[in-house]
Amino acid sequence: MRGLLFSAAICLATSPALSDPLPSWGSTENKSTIISFVESVTDPTSPDYVTPADRIAVFDNDGTLWGEQPVYFQLIYALDRLKAKAEADPSILTSDILRAGAEGDLETIAAGGVEGLLEILAVSHSGMSVEAFQNDVRDWLDEARHPTTDMRYDAMVYQPMLELLSYLRDEGFQTWIVSGGGVHFIRAFAESAYNIPPEQVIGSAGPTEYLDGQVMKLPGIDFVDDKEGKPVGIDNRIGKRPIIAGGNSDGDFAMLEYTTAGDGPRLGILVHHTDAEREFAYDREGHIGVLNRGLDEGPDRGWVIVDMARDWEQVWPE
Amino acid sequence: MRGLLFSAAICLATSPALSDPLPSWGSTENKSTIISFVESVTDPTSPDYVTPADRIAVFDNDGTLWGEQPVYFQLIYALDRLKAKAEADPSILTSDILRAGAEGDLETIAAGGVEGLLEILAVSHSGMSVEAFQNDVRDWLDEARHPTTDMRYDAMVYQPMLELLSYLRDEGFQTWIVSGGGVHFIRAFAESAYNIPPEQVIGSAGPTEYLDGQVMKLPGIDFVDDKEGKPVGIDNRIGKRPIIAGGNSDGDFAMLEYTTAGDGPRLGILVHHTDAEREFAYDREGHIGVLNRGLDEGPDRGWVIVDMARDWEQVWPE
Ligand SMILES: [Ca+2]
Ligand SMILES: [Ca+2]
Repeated sequence: MRGLLFSAAICLATSPALSDPLPSWGSTENKSTIISFVESVTDPTSPDYVTPADRIAVFDNDGTLWGEQPVYFQLIYALDRLKAKAEADPSILTSDILRAGAEGDLETIAAGGVEGLLEILAVSHSGMSVEAFQNDVRDWLDEARHPTTDMRYDAMVYQPMLELLSYLRDEGFQTWIVSGGGVHFIRAFAESAYNIPPEQVIGSAGPTEYLDGQVMKLPGIDFVDDKEGKPVGIDNRIGKRPIIAGGNSDGDFAMLEYTTAGDGPRLGILVHHTDAEREFAYDREGHIGVLNRGLDEGPDRGWVIVDMARDWEQVWPE
Repeated sequence: MRGLLFSAAICLATSPALSDPLPSWGSTENKSTIISFVESVTDPTSPDYVTPADRIAVFDNDGTLWGEQPVYFQLIYALDRLKAKAEADPSILTSDILRAGAEGDLETIAAGGVEGLLEILAVSHSGMSVEAFQNDVRDWLDEARHPTTDMRYDAMVYQPMLELLSYLRDEGFQTWIVSGGGVHFIRAFAESAYNIPPEQVIGSAGPTEYLDGQVMKLPGIDFVDDKEGKPVGIDNRIGKRPIIAGGNSDGDFAMLEYTTAGDGPRLGILVHHTDAEREFAYDREGHIGVLNRGLDEGPDRGWVIVDMARDWEQVWPE
């Protein structure tokens, strides 16, 4: 009898049906929708069953898995490095845009468009091996702190999304990052921050060159993994249409459309930044994470629009 | 006693040390080198132990996993499709190179260089969705037969290499294809032929475009996954230096060099086509699979040079 009770206790403790896979999510309809979807595609007796090989979930990074305000964290890294290099050797500031960058003058940088941005990025993002670059990114993550939260940048990851990634992996999904950010930059922390290995990170990429046993980073941009570039990147790298896609801006619209246009069960998720108190509130306007079409068309397309303030009981990890 | 014997029999039957993971390989030094390497990197008590996350093995495709004579099988596909389309509509033959292609005139095609080849490839490799293209490749594989062996092209895979792939996966390796062939082409059969899923295939790629829920193939070439392009592709897609690389030509030299230049245990493998009787014999000369530098420098670099005639007891699957 005691043995039986003991067995029952073990069953209770380990039964997935009785433990909450998303404890930081409030008990809202969005949470139920996500869990019902995962349960239906992983239940072999369900008509919506999907074999493990096809359980591909893709997620945007900036604003979906970690913060992106006041500007993309990768830009803060680039400006920090530009500033430090200019202090050591002011002669590197050979243009107005580089001088603006070293002064952190975001307005001038924004006015400089993509070309100006690439000039700034070139200082920190080229002229070294991929390994050296990633070691430098990790050094920066160790020392840098966010201007308003004073947190480590790689600690500003959304606890509810970490739980979702982990839940999906427990249910046999591959969890991929498909980000407009730089692929080498994201890989420097994706494994420690998200448990996502380098081979499951897709991002924007500059040219590289193989030289004497090393892959070297060159200036410029080869592939922009944003908007229509996201399905293109997914096809090129994964070669399969995902069944779950999560994002937070109209830069993710094509990815969610591509994902949910496939046959069979599909889930689109948009994180709507509604929580000025615990994080940031922004959507239709601004210079980052603009979300218009997703809010207008997402609900009719059956996409889950996550309301951060209402759906998430906790934002940051403890 | 009988129970004990029975247990012992089960142990014998399932013990990895006593079953041969590479039965089609003869008992040669090359086989022992490969097995010793795998055993040392997977033995947690070994100083050469490598964690499963870093057990990345990359393999060239043409001439390494499947045949490549008399010409790359992908070119035969392109010419077959060009010919069929020209029969249905001769007006598509708008240039000398296309006319040569439709006639299977390999000499003129070779003289046309990359530009001519791209013109031929464009007919069968662009203007449709990725899914439609891959369905067509699979149709072709079902109907086409090799000119001298009369085998299905996707049956002309090397049994010893299938065993090596399977052995590596059993030992916790990821097995990737890194091929100069087209990524969409290879993915059409990699899963059925090699048990390698689409997301572990890296190949040359033309531009694509996202349109209304589909990824469409466009003419041209964006990335050539050959020579120095192979380490570049590996870095871009996998983001990690492999510990095993296998190839068969000097197009794989940079990949093997990059792989074996890393710290810790590394294994380079070159398949040397020495078996005119069961397959084809070729190396230093010719238009395909040329192997000079690998033969000259490989042994000093500690790379395994597989002698097909001597090392393989069987070439094709039964
Ligand atoms: Ca975003
Ligand atoms: Ca080859």
